[in-house]
Amino acid sequence: MERPILEHTLEQLRNALERDDLASAANIIEAMRPADQADLFAELEEEQQHALLPEIAPEDSADILEELDDETVAELVDALSDETIVRIMDEMEPDEVADLLGDLHPDRAEMLLSGLEDPDEVRPLMIHPDESAGGLMTTEFLVLRRRMTAAEAIEAFRLWNPDAETIYYLYVVDQIGRLSGVVNLRQLILADPDTLIMDLMETKLITVGPDTDQEEAAQLLLRYDLLALPVVDDQKRLLGVITVDDVMDVLEEEATEDIQRYGGAQPLERPYLDTPPSTITRKRIGWLLLLFITATLTGSVMLLFQEELQAVVALAIFIPLLIGTGGNAGSQTTATIIRALATRDIEPRDAFWVWWHEARVGLLLGAGMAIAAYIRAITWEPDSALALTVSVSIMALVLWATSVGSILPLAAARLGIDPALVSGPLMSTLVDATGLFIYFSIAGIILGI
Amino acid sequence: MERPILEHTLEQLRNALERDDLASAANIIEAMRPADQADLFAELEEEQQHALLPEIAPEDSADILEELDDETVAELVDALSDETIVRIMDEMEPDEVADLLGDLHPDRAEMLLSGLEDPDEVRPLMIHPDESAGGLMTTEFLVLRRRMTAAEAIEAFRLWNPDAETIYYLYVVDQIGRLSGVVNLRQLILADPDTLIMDLMETKLITVGPDTDQEEAAQLLLRYDLLALPVVDDQKRLLGVITVDDVMDVLEEEATEDIQRYGGAQPLERPYLDTPPSTITRKRIGWLLLLFITATLTGSVMLLFQEELQAVVALAIFIPLLIGTGGNAGSQTTATIIRALATRDIEPRDAFWVWWHEARVGLLLGAGMAIAAYIRAITWEPDSALALTVSVSIMALVLWATSVGSILPLAAARLGIDPALVSGPLMSTLVDATGLFIYFSIAGIILGI
Repeated sequence: MERPILEHTLEQLRNALERDDLASAANIIEAMRPADQADLFAELEEEQQHALLPEIAPEDSADILEELDDETVAELVDALSDETIVRIMDEMEPDEVADLLGDLHPDRAEMLLSGLEDPDEVRPLMIHPDESAGGLMTTEFLVLRRRMTAAEAIEAFRLWNPDAETIYYLYVVDQIGRLSGVVNLRQLILADPDTLIMDLMETKLITVGPDTDQEEAAQLLLRYDLLALPVVDDQKRLLGVITVDDVMDVLEEEATEDIQRYGGAQPLERPYLDTPPSTITRKRIGWLLLLFITATLTGSVMLLFQEELQAVVALAIFIPLLIGTGGNAGSQTTATIIRALATRDIEPRDAFWVWWHEARVGLLLGAGMAIAAYIRAITWEPDSALALTVSVSIMALVLWATSVGSILPLAAARLGIDPALVSGPLMSTLVDATGLFIYFSIAGIILGI
Repeated sequence: MERPILEHTLEQLRNALERDDLASAANIIEAMRPADQADLFAELEEEQQHALLPEIAPEDSADILEELDDETVAELVDALSDETIVRIMDEMEPDEVADLLGDLHPDRAEMLLSGLEDPDEVRPLMIHPDESAGGLMTTEFLVLRRRMTAAEAIEAFRLWNPDAETIYYLYVVDQIGRLSGVVNLRQLILADPDTLIMDLMETKLITVGPDTDQEEAAQLLLRYDLLALPVVDDQKRLLGVITVDDVMDVLEEEATEDIQRYGGAQPLERPYLDTPPSTITRKRIGWLLLLFITATLTGSVMLLFQEELQAVVALAIFIPLLIGTGGNAGSQTTATIIRALATRDIEPRDAFWVWWHEARVGLLLGAGMAIAAYIRAITWEPDSALALTVSVSIMALVLWATSVGSILPLAAARLGIDPALVSGPLMSTLVDATGLFIYFSIAGIILGI
């Protein structure tokens, strides 16, 4: 609700609904763009939503359902009649229908599916998980044959009349449905009408399988500046097409999930202010408790070195400084590595080189911090042995933290776990406990306690 | 270099270069896609790059320069002759040429600019900062007039023959160049050839000004599923067009910068493994030192409460646990808020509501953690007053951390500072010092010390 114009429209909409003037309310919604329609609609009370949706033209209702978050859609579908839902679903993209049905009770989903005009367009999409290329693709595509002319292809496109704005690539298949090339609308228009498709088409294709992770598909489209990516099976038969608008949503979503995970929380499924505090709490408390338990390790290390602490009380004063710096150095490394993995700058098999890179960074950073720590320590407590202890410890800690911070996310990726689960808080907590151990050991050697 | 096929091609390329067979090497590069061309090229030695680039067809060299990172390009341009560079720049998109020239010494830039075939296409782009809509847009666009027919528009498109794959929107302007509508290629093809453009065009347009932040432009394109966004001046005159491929790069880049900043480091400008350890160190040490200085506050708080610590030594054991939990709760909040701001889920002016949301989360989380902390404390030291102290402190700390974690990034956004600068490490460090203060104050009250 950022734009004042939407606030104004929302007021009109609410007025119409208070007058029970559903037709006017529907008109107001229908005049907006899909993303704004969904935003306005989401601001209404639940009962208003249930009353209004059947009155809105099915193609607009379809846009609204496509834009709303999954949970809100599931609630709406529960509240509305099969007939209304089927009418709307007939106007939705097949991949969106498949996602929606996947969130419902299987019996209800089967009932709705069988009511659709073209259930066979949706059914194959339902076997692919949401987060795979198969779950992201649409099965609405036009196929051309190699011996068509450019003029015939344009005519075929006219007859097809796709309603998706983002369809500009047409795929060429052979007799048994295997993908053999792609032409875009631009090429068709620029070509002599009699040119054969086989002479126009690009045959070096980038394709993905239906099981490819949606993030990987998104990165391919991004890397090669494509508007769409074909999904093919083992026999190279065309199954569907992933379009650039879906890919942008995936990239945004994955970046959001990564930063939330990295911050030490499970990702939220809805926009922030629409997520009730109880849900946000649930998404966070697991990690908080786990880290709490890990943090008790730090207490145990302190108990272990109680004698050293009592012998040189000044050691305690530097604890927050040292473990803080270690945790920070680890967080910096992890953030960089997680993102480099996400954008495919590095691969899990580069582990050794990444570690070697970070080890050198750790040495440089550690040396810098050691100088700072020595100066700070000597001005706090004029004791050069203590200052040396603090200085050497911070050097060792930073090197240790950059090493752990680079190895852990790479190991996670190698094990097939999302590397963003190696969060900043996890790094700080791990480095706290192990760092104290390093600190007290070095103190033991230098101070002879 | 993730794909084995590229490794193989790289070997061929290196062999050709060792035989001094520049023509074969150029052929190998020219057969690849732009992103792969750039990757292969980046793997070569500097002298090999300097020798090879002039031999590659200018349109492929242009693609390579567009894909390489800015620093590498600047080095290449320094090493090559004006003649070579101008020949390549004539094949590049005007916005990319403007970016490149902006990174050079003004004298060299002016010299190269004056050598271009069409310097006037580039010159207006050079006044816009890199990160603005004006810096992101291209000035290569086709304008239509309202009284053209669909057939005439298609003919105009044919004559224009754009080389950018992503151009599918055509803009309609009036006599004095003001933007009045948009049609896409799909509509032109589907329309009766005699239809007037004014009857086809969409007139409700989403536009941005040249000074709009590129991230905001990207979010608009994403929100409305557009393939391009027109950039207009105060008088609504069309200045340029931002295309979806550039927007995807911006979204990726901004997400990368956010996660690196949030991890407590300045963003890197090049891919991770191409950035030397000394540069990575420079990007990190500033924050590390700043946080180090802030962390000395924690030591000062401990000195302040030395008496309490000596009275109840057991208080010390819980310090890492308490400040760790506070820091983690703060990091979780900050990550969520930063990302919600980036995706425009929340706006800086929602500050009060966001804080109220987080305060409730803080109460719930705090209550949960208080129970866990009580159990942990009582099993560690069977002292119910101490356990109560720890338990009440963790509750207060979590509430404090979620409040600070939500207010700080919102305040930064309001002041026009990137909210991602409120990093996880900054949150932990701030909450460490203030949290200890809260802990000792509560201990003073409950334990009467």
